[in-house]
Order: sequence, then C-alpha cells, then structure tokens
Amino acid sequence: MKNLLVAQSGGPTAAINATVAGVITAALTSRKVDGIWGAVNGIKGVLEERFVDLKEKISGTGDLDLLCQTPAAALGSCRFKLNNIEEDSSQYEEIIRIFRKHEIAYFIYAGGNDSMDTVDKLSAYCKDHDINDIKVMGAPKTIDNDLVGTDHCPGFGSAAKYIGTTFAELERDCHVYDTKAVTIVEVMGRNAGWLTAASALSRNNGGHGPNLIYLCEPAFSVESFLADVKHELEQYDSVLVAISEGIKDKDGIYISEQVQSKAVDNFGHSYIAGSARVLEDAVRREIGCKVRSIELNLMQRCASHVASAVDIHESKMLGMTACQYALEGNSGLMAAVERTCNEPYQVHFTAIPVSEVSNKEKKVPESFINQAGNDVTEEMMEYLRPLVQGETPVIYENGIPKYIYLY
Amino acid sequence: MKNLLVAQSGGPTAAINATVAGVITAALTSRKVDGIWGAVNGIKGVLEERFVDLKEKISGTGDLDLLCQTPAAALGSCRFKLNNIEEDSSQYEEIIRIFRKHEIAYFIYAGGNDSMDTVDKLSAYCKDHDINDIKVMGAPKTIDNDLVGTDHCPGFGSAAKYIGTTFAELERDCHVYDTKAVTIVEVMGRNAGWLTAASALSRNNGGHGPNLIYLCEPAFSVESFLADVKHELEQYDSVLVAISEGIKDKDGIYISEQVQSKAVDNFGHSYIAGSARVLEDAVRREIGCKVRSIELNLMQRCASHVASAVDIHESKMLGMTACQYALEGNSGLMAAVERTCNEPYQVHFTAIPVSEVSNKEKKVPESFINQAGNDVTEEMMEYLRPLVQGETPVIYENGIPKYIYLY
Repeated sequence: MKNLLVAQSGGPTAAINATVAGVITAALTSRKVDGIWGAVNGIKGVLEERFVDLKEKISGTGDLDLLCQTPAAALGSCRFKLNNIEEDSSQYEEIIRIFRKHEIAYFIYAGGNDSMDTVDKLSAYCKDHDINDIKVMGAPKTIDNDLVGTDHCPGFGSAAKYIGTTFAELERDCHVYDTKAVTIVEVMGRNAGWLTAASALSRNNGGHGPNLIYLCEPAFSVESFLADVKHELEQYDSVLVAISEGIKDKDGIYISEQVQSKAVDNFGHSYIAGSARVLEDAVRREIGCKVRSIELNLMQRCASHVASAVDIHESKMLGMTACQYALEGNSGLMAAVERTCNEPYQVHFTAIPVSEVSNKEKKVPESFINQAGNDVTEEMMEYLRPLVQGETPVIYENGIPKYIYLY
Repeated sequence: MKNLLVAQSGGPTAAINATVAGVITAALTSRKVDGIWGAVNGIKGVLEERFVDLKEKISGTGDLDLLCQTPAAALGSCRFKLNNIEEDSSQYEEIIRIFRKHEIAYFIYAGGNDSMDTVDKLSAYCKDHDINDIKVMGAPKTIDNDLVGTDHCPGFGSAAKYIGTTFAELERDCHVYDTKAVTIVEVMGRNAGWLTAASALSRNNGGHGPNLIYLCEPAFSVESFLADVKHELEQYDSVLVAISEGIKDKDGIYISEQVQSKAVDNFGHSYIAGSARVLEDAVRREIGCKVRSIELNLMQRCASHVASAVDIHESKMLGMTACQYALEGNSGLMAAVERTCNEPYQVHFTAIPVSEVSNKEKKVPESFINQAGNDVTEEMMEYLRPLVQGETPVIYENGIPKYIYLY
C-alpha cells in the first residue's frame, strides 16, 4: 500500500487548487499510488492527522474542473515553519511516524518560500536518516512571483490578469470626469514589484492604463512622486497611479511606516495606513486636487472568476510534474517552469533542488523598470503578456461561480 | 432633419453604456431620426457643444457589443445641476439654442437622481415655453439602486454580481486559516443598503457567505456589532462581515464620522476613515483578534468583466424604451422596469413621469432586513437573485477585456 498526501500552505491564490487537481490527476493515472489524501491546513494538519480522502471528495464528472475554479486553498492553509532540526527533531519524527502509520509514500507540498523551507527540511531529514520510502516534493505557488528557480509562479498569472483587467476598468472609471483628480492604487508586494508591474497589462488593447507605476525595488521618493503627478496633471484630467505596498525610501524605510508610527485616532490608537493612503494625504496636502486611494487587498489573490487560462493550465501541469517526479523516486525538489520562448510562448516543466529556492526572493530586475523609476519597460511587458492569456470557462450557478468544498 | 442626442451623467457603472447602445439601436431602426449624437461629459458637454457622431463611432460589426462591455461612461460624465429656473433661466435658453442649432429633436439623458432632476427641469421648461419639437427623456442608472419608480436600476445587477462573486471568493480566502480572524468589507451605499445586501448572493450555491450583514437603514450600534462578532467567533475561526459605508448610529451620525473628526496624522491632518476601518479598530481594541478591513471601492461599480447578463440586457432595453417613448412624442418621462414575477422572472418596460423620481431615494424596506438588523431576509434574496443571472460573453484580447473609445 502506497498512499499519496498533498497539502497547501501560505497565502491563498486563484491557482493553487489547480495544482492539487494536477497532483490528483497524475496520481489517479499511476499504478504506484493507492490512496490519495489531502491534509487540512498544511503541515499543521499533517501533525494533527487531519486528512481527507480526495478520491472520495473528487469523484463526480467535473469535480476536477470545479476544484480548478475554486479560489484560495481548498485544503486550507497554514503559516507554520518546522523547528530547526539541530534544535528539535521531534516534529520530524512525528511526521515520519504519521506518514508510516498512514502508509504515505509521497508527500506533495504546494506553497511559497516558507513551504519550500518545509519541503527542504523534511526531505533533508529523510535523506540524513536513510528514509528512502518517503518522497517529499514541492510545487510552487505565490501571487508575489518571487520564488527563484522558476520562470514564474502559479497564481501570479491570474492575479496579474485580475490586476490588468481592474486597472483597465479603473482607468475608464476615473476618466469620465473632466476635473483634475488623482487615484492611487496599492497593489500587493512587500519586497517584489511583479504584481504592481501587472497594472501595465491594462494597456494591452490600446488603453491608457496607469499614468505612473512605482515598484518597490527602486528607492521611492515622495518628492519625485509629487513632481511626477504634477507633470501628469498638466496633461491629463485624471491621473491613475499604481504603487507597490512595499515602496521604501532610500534608507529602506517603508513609506507606509513613515506615518503610521505617529498618527493616532481619538482613542489614542495608532493608524496603520497603507502606502497608497500615505501618498493620498501627500497629494491632498501638496497638490490639493481631488485624490483617492484604493487597495486591491485580498481580491487580487482570490479572483478566480477572472483567472488566466495559461496560469491554471500551468498550475495543473506543475502539480502533475511534482507528482511524477515523486513517483519516479525523486525527493527534495520543487517543480518549476522554464520559459524557452516569449513569442510564441513556450515553456517546459522541470524540477530543481528545493534548497536552491527556499528562503530566497526573486526581485524585479533593473532592466524591467524604466530609468525614471515610474514605469516598466517593454522587456517587462514581454515577460508578463503570455502569463495572462486565455480565459477559463468558469461554471456559474444562480449567477455566482460554483465551488467545491473539500472539508 | 431631426437628430437625437444622448448623454450620460453621475457615477460610472458597468451597464450605462448598454443603455446608450439601446438608444442607438432604437434610433438606427427608426425613420424619425437622422443623426445620432453623443454629448461628452453630460449636460455640461451639451452647454459646451462637445458632441461626437455616434453613427461614425459605432459603425463596425460588434461595436455595439464592445460598447456594452466597456465600463464606466463611454461618453464621459458630469456632476452638474441646472440652475433653478426661477432664479436663472439662461442655461435653459442656451440648451434650447444649441439643440435648435444642431437640429436636435430628441434628448436622452441616462443617469441617477441628479440627472433625472435635469430631465425634469429641462422638460418642464420646454412645456412651459411651448417648445414641442424637443423631447427630453430619462434613462435610469445607478449602482445604488435607490431610484424610485423602477423595480431596480441598470448597473445595480452587475455591481451586485461583482459583490456576490467577490464575497464568495473572500469567504474562501478567509476560510483557509484555522486561527481566529475578522474581515470587515465595506460596500458602497451612503443612504441605501441594496449593494451591501448583495453580499448575501455569495451563499447562492451553498457557500457560507458573510457571517453578518449590516445595511445602512437600521440604526447601527458598535456594541451590538461587537457582541455579534464575538458570538460568531465562538462558532467560526473566520468571521466575514459586510457593512454599508453609510452605517449610522441611532442619532443619524455616520459611524465613519465618529473618528475622522479627531484622528490626525503626524502632519496634523485629519484621517478620513471609512466605516469598515473604524470597526476594524473597534474589533482590535475590544476583541483583540486578527482583523482586516477591505473597501470594494471603485471596483464594484466598474467591474464589467463580471457583468450580469440580465442587467446588461435590461439596460439596453431601457435605453431603447427611453428612445421609443421620445420618438412617440413623449417628454419628461423616465424609462422604468416593472417586475411582474420573481420566479420565473418577468418584467415589462415602461416609463413614468420623471417628476416622481427626481430628488427621491428608495431605501431598503424593513421586511428585507432581519429583526436583529445583522442579515437580510428571504424576501430580499427573492428580489436580488434574478438580477444577477447570466454571464455576458466578454470579448478579451491579449488577455484583457476589449473596450470601445468614443472620445
């Protein structure tokens, strides 16, 4: 008896369930796998033995399709780092005991940086202890697109499509009045500006898109920002700005931190303002025109109703890749996508040592950002465009998308 | 020579361009109309004679479909009230002079309360001055759904579908962790809670939806809210709350105003917090668990990529109705939709005196809100459900929806 266990970790995305669908698909078509199990709430759920039988849950025709269009993590998630093995190996022993008890031979973990740390540590533990009957594989996931070793991450393309579409809509919305107004939209990304760059996709069909785009990689200057906005206001009535939540000044201090520490409400509590909110106040103070700040907030990571078909397809393929590599006896790897051509867009699926991935961050390269630091370059657009292609045939019922519930 | 002029006013919606498409369609198929013109930026653009030739702009196959899926007001908008005629009739004289100059016999104005005020005043002026060769008609539009005299307003159904879909996604997103957390989502609506009620549509297919829903009609008590949240937290890890931006206490003071007057940032400027933000702080202070506030902001009114097919269809039909009534010699009316049956959903299109509509507000009736004031009733659901049915076949190009540009 050899069972497979899959689990999800980290922040939700619109595509992580497609990865689970890929794992299930590959497992269902292999003679090496008997039971297919899901752990609820990631590695935390493994330690608590909270398992669901995925063969039972995903049984009807179309269940896999429904799983692919269900947002967030259908198996739940966790933010849980395994202890350092040198300090405390008890969690590792417990996990192996549980795996043995349930005859789990393959464990696939879909997630971001922290989750790859878990895959790294757990596979290293197995290797060090000559545990050869348990294979541990990672599958990438993060809307932030900041994992190294893979051209891009599942979940990013769908978030980018949501952001591109939303900026296209916001541009039209803000354009209707002929009075001067500034709209500042904050996009997720503390340390990498990939998602904010995706706002430029709103220009794909000739739309004006954002007037200004600030990623978090270059040092951000409020003075330059205000000068840029004033310059745009000379030409346009409506100025639309995209900024990363993680914009920082030249000393590396988050713009959002520059106000929140001192502002208080009438109960004496600090206000934790986002960076867009801080800039909104700066525009109101220094320019004085109508100004509004918007946060795309959680919507940008779970908008499966406008998922990218390329993203959902690749997410599924990466789940299958992770599963296949495990079935072929590999451990300690992360499935990855390698791009071989932008146009026509071509990729192949592979796997790389997870030790090269965990606890690292892929930032936006300089050549993807214009010299003024207030827009992206054509190189960035060539990178982004293929990732948002195609629409998924979302199944609606009663006017609302239909989901599958695994627990 | 008899020309028709159409213009848009008030806040953008996902459906107001479908109304213009309806006007164009009806005008194109009538022998009574020669030129079809659009005024840019509403009545303001009329006074400035900023016109576009819609026969020229909407010429290719599929242009009308593109117009229907373009969000916001393709002809631009304005927030402009005509002067009171008793005080100053010069604007009216000027409009009539311009209409005569351009041989405009039919003027269709799509918009909300303020726009219907314009239709009312202008048609009354014509009547009082025996100007019988110019017909002025209104077409309803507002995501707020607060116009009287029509069962519902074009734009509302699409906003409701976006809100229902988004709450379904947010519920899945917030559900993934097994730690206690509260998410408070602020929905547009200063005086009417229709849009906030639409969050309940996220339950259409068995989803849990928001735990609590507070419209702006009943008096809001922060104490009761905190008690409700605590009660939900006893049963669930994740508590999702929908609130109207316009929730007010028993004295009619906006909850959002209770903080903004005193809170200042380190520059001494007031913070204008939304009501969700105020409640976020209250939960942090009084309950102490993880809490987040989200504003659906402009996205809820311009999300044409997830428009309701029923809404877009009806918006077009109301544009046609307004046009037909004008061609048949009527003036001073607003096209309206009358619902004759919930299931199967049946409506008919009519027109009512615009004087009955302008400067009035349709609030949510008591029977649509539960007794505790923290959810909606089945009566509300029966009202809402038909309005979000069906998906529009959005035309994408390069991964992003395609729009038409009229100016």
